[in-house]
Amino acid sequence: MRIDIYNGPNLDDIGARSDEYYATTNEAIRETIEHTADELAVDWKLQQTNHEGDLIDWIHDTDADGVVLNPAGLTHYAAALRDAVSRVDYPVVEAHISNIDSRGEELEWRGRSVIAPVCVGQISGFGATSYELGLRAIHRELTDAQN
Amino acid sequence: MRIDIYNGPNLDDIGARSDEYYATTNEAIRETIEHTADELAVDWKLQQTNHEGDLIDWIHDTDADGVVLNPAGLTHYAAALRDAVSRVDYPVVEAHISNIDSRGEELEWRGRSVIAPVCVGQISGFGATSYELGLRAIHRELTDAQN
Amino acid sequence: MRIDIYNGPNLDDIGARSDEYYATTNEAIRETIEHTADELAVDWKLQQTNHEGDLIDWIHDTDADGVVLNPAGLTHYAAALRDAVSRVDYPVVEAHISNIDSRGEELEWRGRSVIAPVCVGQISGFGATSYELGLRAIHRELTDAQN
Amino acid sequence: MRIDIYNGPNLDDIGARSDEYYATTNEAIRETIEHTADELAVDWKLQQTNHEGDLIDWIHDTDADGVVLNPAGLTHYAAALRDAVSRVDYPVVEAHISNIDSRGEELEWRGRSVIAPVCVGQISGFGATSYELGLRAIHRELTDAQN
Amino acid sequence: MRIDIYNGPNLDDIGARSDEYYATTNEAIRETIEHTADELAVDWKLQQTNHEGDLIDWIHDTDADGVVLNPAGLTHYAAALRDAVSRVDYPVVEAHISNIDSRGEELEWRGRSVIAPVCVGQISGFGATSYELGLRAIHRELTDAQN
Amino acid sequence: MRIDIYNGPNLDDIGARSDEYYATTNEAIRETIEHTADELAVDWKLQQTNHEGDLIDWIHDTDADGVVLNPAGLTHYAAALRDAVSRVDYPVVEAHISNIDSRGEELEWRGRSVIAPVCVGQISGFGATSYELGLRAIHRELTDAQN
Amino acid sequence: MRIDIYNGPNLDDIGARSDEYYATTNEAIRETIEHTADELAVDWKLQQTNHEGDLIDWIHDTDADGVVLNPAGLTHYAAALRDAVSRVDYPVVEAHISNIDSRGEELEWRGRSVIAPVCVGQISGFGATSYELGLRAIHRELTDAQN
Amino acid sequence: MRIDIYNGPNLDDIGARSDEYYATTNEAIRETIEHTADELAVDWKLQQTNHEGDLIDWIHDTDADGVVLNPAGLTHYAAALRDAVSRVDYPVVEAHISNIDSRGEELEWRGRSVIAPVCVGQISGFGATSYELGLRAIHRELTDAQN
Amino acid sequence: MRIDIYNGPNLDDIGARSDEYYATTNEAIRETIEHTADELAVDWKLQQTNHEGDLIDWIHDTDADGVVLNPAGLTHYAAALRDAVSRVDYPVVEAHISNIDSRGEELEWRGRSVIAPVCVGQISGFGATSYELGLRAIHRELTDAQN
Amino acid sequence: MRIDIYNGPNLDDIGARSDEYYATTNEAIRETIEHTADELAVDWKLQQTNHEGDLIDWIHDTDADGVVLNPAGLTHYAAALRDAVSRVDYPVVEAHISNIDSRGEELEWRGRSVIAPVCVGQISGFGATSYELGLRAIHRELTDAQN
Amino acid sequence: MRIDIYNGPNLDDIGARSDEYYATTNEAIRETIEHTADELAVDWKLQQTNHEGDLIDWIHDTDADGVVLNPAGLTHYAAALRDAVSRVDYPVVEAHISNIDSRGEELEWRGRSVIAPVCVGQISGFGATSYELGLRAIHRELTDAQN
Amino acid sequence: MRIDIYNGPNLDDIGARSDEYYATTNEAIRETIEHTADELAVDWKLQQTNHEGDLIDWIHDTDADGVVLNPAGLTHYAAALRDAVSRVDYPVVEAHISNIDSRGEELEWRGRSVIAPVCVGQISGFGATSYELGLRAIHRELTDAQN
Repeated sequence: MRIDIYNGPNLDDIGARSDEYYATTNEAIRETIEHTADELAVDWKLQQTNHEGDLIDWIHDTDADGVVLNPAGLTHYAAALRDAVSRVDYPVVEAHISNIDSRGEELEWRGRSVIAPVCVGQISGFGATSYELGLRAIHRELTDAQN
Repeated sequence: MRIDIYNGPNLDDIGARSDEYYATTNEAIRETIEHTADELAVDWKLQQTNHEGDLIDWIHDTDADGVVLNPAGLTHYAAALRDAVSRVDYPVVEAHISNIDSRGEELEWRGRSVIAPVCVGQISGFGATSYELGLRAIHRELTDAQN
Repeated sequence: MRIDIYNGPNLDDIGARSDEYYATTNEAIRETIEHTADELAVDWKLQQTNHEGDLIDWIHDTDADGVVLNPAGLTHYAAALRDAVSRVDYPVVEAHISNIDSRGEELEWRGRSVIAPVCVGQISGFGATSYELGLRAIHRELTDAQN
Repeated sequence: MRIDIYNGPNLDDIGARSDEYYATTNEAIRETIEHTADELAVDWKLQQTNHEGDLIDWIHDTDADGVVLNPAGLTHYAAALRDAVSRVDYPVVEAHISNIDSRGEELEWRGRSVIAPVCVGQISGFGATSYELGLRAIHRELTDAQN
Repeated sequence: MRIDIYNGPNLDDIGARSDEYYATTNEAIRETIEHTADELAVDWKLQQTNHEGDLIDWIHDTDADGVVLNPAGLTHYAAALRDAVSRVDYPVVEAHISNIDSRGEELEWRGRSVIAPVCVGQISGFGATSYELGLRAIHRELTDAQN
Repeated sequence: MRIDIYNGPNLDDIGARSDEYYATTNEAIRETIEHTADELAVDWKLQQTNHEGDLIDWIHDTDADGVVLNPAGLTHYAAALRDAVSRVDYPVVEAHISNIDSRGEELEWRGRSVIAPVCVGQISGFGATSYELGLRAIHRELTDAQN
Repeated sequence: MRIDIYNGPNLDDIGARSDEYYATTNEAIRETIEHTADELAVDWKLQQTNHEGDLIDWIHDTDADGVVLNPAGLTHYAAALRDAVSRVDYPVVEAHISNIDSRGEELEWRGRSVIAPVCVGQISGFGATSYELGLRAIHRELTDAQN
Repeated sequence: MRIDIYNGPNLDDIGARSDEYYATTNEAIRETIEHTADELAVDWKLQQTNHEGDLIDWIHDTDADGVVLNPAGLTHYAAALRDAVSRVDYPVVEAHISNIDSRGEELEWRGRSVIAPVCVGQISGFGATSYELGLRAIHRELTDAQN
Repeated sequence: MRIDIYNGPNLDDIGARSDEYYATTNEAIRETIEHTADELAVDWKLQQTNHEGDLIDWIHDTDADGVVLNPAGLTHYAAALRDAVSRVDYPVVEAHISNIDSRGEELEWRGRSVIAPVCVGQISGFGATSYELGLRAIHRELTDAQN
Repeated sequence: MRIDIYNGPNLDDIGARSDEYYATTNEAIRETIEHTADELAVDWKLQQTNHEGDLIDWIHDTDADGVVLNPAGLTHYAAALRDAVSRVDYPVVEAHISNIDSRGEELEWRGRSVIAPVCVGQISGFGATSYELGLRAIHRELTDAQN
Repeated sequence: MRIDIYNGPNLDDIGARSDEYYATTNEAIRETIEHTADELAVDWKLQQTNHEGDLIDWIHDTDADGVVLNPAGLTHYAAALRDAVSRVDYPVVEAHISNIDSRGEELEWRGRSVIAPVCVGQISGFGATSYELGLRAIHRELTDAQN
Repeated sequence: MRIDIYNGPNLDDIGARSDEYYATTNEAIRETIEHTADELAVDWKLQQTNHEGDLIDWIHDTDADGVVLNPAGLTHYAAALRDAVSRVDYPVVEAHISNIDSRGEELEWRGRSVIAPVCVGQISGFGATSYELGLRAIHRELTDAQN
C-alpha cells in the first residue's frame, strides 16, 4: 500500500519564517508522516509544487493507492484541481495545517474549499498532526474497502 | 487522561434506519471509540442529547481533559453552544460522520459551522473513523501540551 | 390510526392576548382538531412545548401513524428539528396558523422554513382550519399508502 | 356557493408523461375536485391556460365565491397575477401539487411565491389532495364569513 | 401629433374597489388625459390589457408619435416588454400612479423597474396627474426634436 | 403660492463643461422654471449648494408651499436629508435631469434614491423639463389639497 | 424528420432598425435556416410570437421531432416556458443571436437563462449562424438517437 | 414593583476565566443590580439558564413588572425567544455586557439581534453597568406608564 | 466633570410635529438632561447641527470629559464622523430616541450604525430617557476610570 | 485555413472512467473534429494541458486562424486566460461537452464563465458534437470575414 | 504649474495621537510635500476640512493644474464629492496614507472607494510617501499632456 | 540595492495590439523603469510569465531587496500568489497600468485584488508611470528602513 502526500503552493518553507497561522515546520511534518507511515506500514512520497497544473498532473499519473492533499492557497478557487480529484477512483483526503474555518471568520474566502466536497473528507487545524490523521483516514478507507 | 465524546441531536439512532448520508451505525461508532481509547489508554464517556442546553451544561461541567463534539444539526446555528466551547480551556474537536463540505454544495447552510472556528480543528467525512481521528487529535494535543 | 399534533414555542396561550397575526384561540384549535378527528375516526394527542429538544424527543419516540407539526418560531432555524423529521418513516405535515409567506414580506426570515422541505407538505394561513387540513392531509396520505 | 379552480401553465397534461415531481394525473385531480365538491355541496369550474393574461382576466371576471389557484410556473415571477389576486374581495387559496419548499432547496427560485402572500393561505405538497384541501379551506373561509 | 397611453394589467378597474395605493379612479385618469391632450392639442388613444404580449404588439404596431406606458405589475420583470420599448424610435415615458420608490421600501422588487432604463424617463407617485406629466413630457420631447 | 427649487451638489455649472449625462444648461433650467412659474402664476426661488447640511437647513426654514428638490449626488446616501424631507408637511418632489434608472444599470447605486420614498413622487430623465414637470406636480398637489 | 424554429418576443423585425446587438436580419436568418435544412434534408417551420403563452402552446402541440428555441427577452424569467420545455420528450436547443454571456457583464440578468438548463444545450453569439448550429445540433441528436 | 433579570447561555461564569470581551465578573453584575435596585426601591430576581426553552417558560410565567434580558448567544437566532418577548404586555429591555455592534464588525452575525426589535430598547457595551441602565430604563418605563 | 450632548440632523424640532417614531419633545429631552446632570453633579452643553462636518469639528475641539452623541440620520453612513469618534481618547456613547433595531426591520439600513462600533456602547429606544442613560453611562465610565 | 482546438485541465482522459457529465470519449471527440475538418477542408491541431499558463502561451503564439477553446475547470475563474483571449484578433469560440447552464443549477459557479464574454460565442451541452459546432462557427466567422 | 493637496475629515491631527493605521504625522506629510514640490518645481497649497461640501467647493473653484485628494472617511460614500471630481478637466489623484485594500479585509466598506474610479488613479499604503507619489503622478500627467 | 519587477499574464505584448485599457507599450514601460532606476541608482530585473506558479517561484527565490508586482489577470483570484507575497520579509508593491477601481465599476471582480492587502501598498492607473511610482515607493521603503 502506498500513500502520496501532495503539498500545494508555499508549503516548501513552513517554519523557515515566523508565521501567524502555522505553528509547525517542514521537518515536523516530514517526521510526523514518516512516523505514522512506519506504524501503518505504508509506503509514501511527499511532493510540493507552486503550480496548480503540477498537482493535476500528479493526481492523474500517480500509482499510489490514496492521496493526502494540502492544496494551500489553491483550496479556495482551483476548480480544475477539484475536477482532477473528482474523477479519480482512489481516496483523496484534504488536510490543512491551520483551522480554515477559523481563518474564514477573518476573511470569508479563506474558509471555503472548492476541493473538499469531492474528497472523502477534510481535516483541518491540527498542525503537523493533520498529516498523521490524513494518512490514518486513507489507510482506514483502503483497509475497509479490502474487507 | 479522559476524553468525552458528546453527540448532538438525532445521533441516538444512526443505522436504525436507512440514511442517505450516514453509512455507519451507533454500534460501529461505539466500537471505534472503544478500540481507539484502548490503544491510546484514555478513559472516555459517550453522551447524546437532543437539547442544545444539555450540551452547554456538559461542556461547562465536565472533568474531561478534552472533548470530541459532534453537534449534528446544531452545527449550523447554535451560537450559544459555540460560546460555551470558546470559553473552556481544554481542547475541543468538531467531528462529523458525513462530509459537510459535500452536503454544503447541495444545501448551502449544511456546509457552514458556527462552532468549528472556536475548536482546535474539524474532521468531517470519515464515518465512524471520524471519532477515531477526533480522539487521536485530542490525545496528540494533550500530549504535546504536556511536553 | 393515531395522529399526533405537536405545537412549538409560545403556542400555549393563543388568544389569551390580542395578537396581530393569530385570529384564533387555543380553544378553537382544540375544537377543530376534535371535530375533524371524530369525522375521520382517528385517535389523536395534542402536545405543546417551548423546548426544541422536546419536539425532537417526541418525534423520535411517538407511536403515532403521522404528525401535524407547528414549529412556530423554530420554523426558521431549527435544523436539528428538521433532521428529526427527515429521518422518520411516518408522514409529517407542517401547519401554520398565519400565512407565513405574507409575514415573510414584512421580515424575510419569517417566510422561510427549514423544516417544510422534509415534510410531506405545508399548510399555512387558515387559522384553526390549518389543523383540520393537516389532519386530513395525513389521513389521506395514510389511507392512500394502505391501498 | 361556487368555487372556481384555475390551473396555470403546463397543467393540462399531468400524468401524460413521466414526471419527477407530480405523482398524479389530470384524471385524479378532476375526480378529487368532483368528490370534494359533492361532499361540500358546492358548484365548481376547472379551467386551465398557458397565458398569464388569461388567469388575470378570469380572476377579474369570475362570478365564483372563491378561487383555488395553482399558478404553476407563474408562481415565481408573475407580479401582474399577484396584483389581480390582491385586489379581489373573494378568498383565493394557492395550491401546489408538489412541495415547493422542497423544490426550493434544489433551485432557490422554485421555493418562492410572489402570489401566496396576497392569498388567504398556501397548500403545497399533497398531490391531487392539495385541491381537496384548497376547496375545503375556501369553503370554511366562506362559511365562517357568513356567520 | 398623436400620443398613445398604454395601461398594463389590472388597470381596468382602478377606483372600483378600495385600494391602499391608488387614490384615484379610471374616470379621473381619463379626464386628466382628455384635459391635458386638449390643452396640448394632441390626439390620443387609451388602451388597457392584462397580457404582456399585447403591450409588445401595440408598441410594435402603433402609428403614434410617442407613448405613455404604465406597465403596472409587469414593471418588475417583463424583459420582453423592455426589449420592445428599447427598439422603437419614438419616445416612451414610464408613468406610475403610486410612488414606486416608496412601495419598494416595503417590498424590494416593487421599487425596481426593468423598463424605465430604456424609456426617456420615469414619472411616479402623482396619481392621475402622472398621466398629465407623461403627456407633457412626450409633447416637450417631440416639440424639442422638431426644433 | 410659492414653490422653491433646491439644487444639490455640482448643479451650479451644468452646461459649463461637456457632460455625458446632462444635455442641458443652467440657463435652460432657469428659463424653464421661469416660464412654467409664469404660466402657473406661482412665486419661486432657486437655490444651489454643495453642502447636505444647507439643504436640510433650507427645508426646515423655508416659507414655501412646496419644494422641487434635485439632491444630485446626495440622492444615493443622504439619510439625514431624507429625514428632513420626511418630517415636513408641505409637498416635496424629487426631480432629476438624467434618467437615474438608466444610470443605475451602469452603476447600481446610481439608480437608488434614499429620498424619493418620502417625497410625493419622483420625476427623472427629462432634462430641464424635469423642473417644469416638478413645478406642475407640486402646483397640482397644492391645488387639489385646497379643494 | 421535421425541426421547428420558435422565435420569441421582438424577433419579428430584426434588421428593420439599427440594433446594437444584432448584426443580422430576418432575411439572413430565414436564408440560413433554409440552406441548412436543405443540406440536412429536414422539414422545418419558423414561427414568431410576442406572447409567452403561445410558445408554451406550440411546444405542447407541435408534431416536430425537435425544436430550436430563441426565447429572446423571455430567456431571463419565463419559468412557465421552462416547465413546458422540461416536460417534452423531443430535443430542444436554445439559440441566441447575440452573445448573452457578454451582455450579462453589462447587465447581470441578461446573462442568465432559466430555460437553457432544461434544454439539450445552448448556442449563443453567432448571429444568423446560431440557427444553423441549432439545426445541426438537433439533427445530430436525433440521428444519434436513431442509432 | 419587581424587575426580573434573565441571563442566557454561558453567563453563569463570567470572570471565572480570562475573557476577551467581558471585562467584568458575576459578582460585579450582582452587586450592580443590588445597588441599583436598592436605589430604585424595586424587588428583583436574577436567573440564568443555558436552555432557550427555559427563558421562554420564565417570560411566560413571571409575575415581574418588567424584565431585563441578556440573551447572550441566543441573541442572534432564537426566533422562538423573540416571539415570547413580543407577546407579553410588560416591558422587556435587552442588555449586553459587550458592545455587540463592535463585535459585529469582526463577525457579522454577532452584531445582529433578532430579539431587540420587539423589546422596548437595547443597551450594549457598558459591562456590569448595562444591567444598571437596563433596570433604570424599565423603572422609568413603568413609572411613566403609571402617570 | 463636563459631558457634552451632540444632536445630529433634524433633532432641532422633535415634538414640533407629529412623528411616527419619536414620542417625546425637545423640552422633555432638555429637562431629562438637566435633571440627570444635576443628580450626577456634572456640567453639560447641548448642541445641535444639520452638518456632519460640524459634529466632527465639535468632537475634535471639545473640552468635555465625555460625549453623548445622537447622530440621527448620519448614523447609517457617516464614516467620517465615525473616524472622528474613533480617534478621541474620551468616552463617547451613541444614544437614540427610537429603537433602531426595530426600525431596521422595516428598512434594513435604519438598523445599522457605522458609528456605534467605535463608541463605548449604544443605547436605543427609550425616548428622552436614552439621554439620561447615556449621561449615566459616561459618568460611570469616567468614575470607574478615576478609580 | 487552420483552426486549433485547445482542451483545458482533465480533458486528457474523457471516457477512460465512468463520468456523470460526459457521455463521450476522447476518441469520439477526435473523430468528430477530424470528420468536420475534412468536410470544411481546414487544417487543425488538438492540444491538451492541465496548466492555465500553457493555454495562455498557446493563444499568444499560435499561427491558427481561429481557436475552439474548452477551458474545462478553468472556465469559472481563470481571468488571466480571459485576458489572453480578449486581446487576440482571431475568433475564439468557447465549447463545452456538458450543459454548463444545467450544471450551474446544481452548483452556482459551475454555470458561470469568465471567458465566454470575450469569445465570439459559446456552445455547450452537445457532447463531442460541441466541437463540430465550434469548428463550423469559426469557419463561418472566417468565411464571412473574407467576404 | 500648481498642484493643490486637499485633505478630508480628521486629517488635521495625524500623529497627534497614537493611531493604529497611520504611522506618520502632519509634519512629515508637509515636509514630504514641500520637498517633492521643490524637486519638481511646482507651486502647491495644502488644505484640510471636515466638511464634504468644502471639498466640492474647492474642487470647483481652484486655479490649480492638478489635485492630490485624500478624501479620508468620505472615500467610501461621498458620491457628491465623486461627481465634483468627475466633472473637472484637470487631473485628480486619490492618495491614502494607509493601505485601504488591507483595511477592507477587516471591514468591507473600508476597502471601497466611490471616488477613485473617476480619478486618474489611486495610490494607497505608503504613509507620507503617498503624497510624494501623488504629486509625481500629477506632474507626469501634466508634463505628458504638454507634449 | 536591487528591485525586481514581475509582470503577470499577457503583459508580454502591451502596445503590440490596440488595447482599450492600456495606453502604453512594453518599450515605454522598460524605458520608464530604466530611467527611474538610474535616477535612484538601483539595480533591477524585469521578468514576465503567464504562469502563476512561476511568479510564486520567483518571489520565493529572488535575491532582490524589493519587488514591484503587476499580477495582471491573476490579481483577482490568485490566493496562492497572495500567500507567497504575505510570507516574504522584503517589501512588495502592487502596480497596475490601468485604473482597476474604474474597471471594477464596469465589471465588479476587475476592481478587487486579493493580493494588494498583503502588499505595502497599491498604485493603479498611471500607465507606464505606475512602474516609476512603484520603484520609488520600494526605494523609499527600503531607505526609511535603513534609517
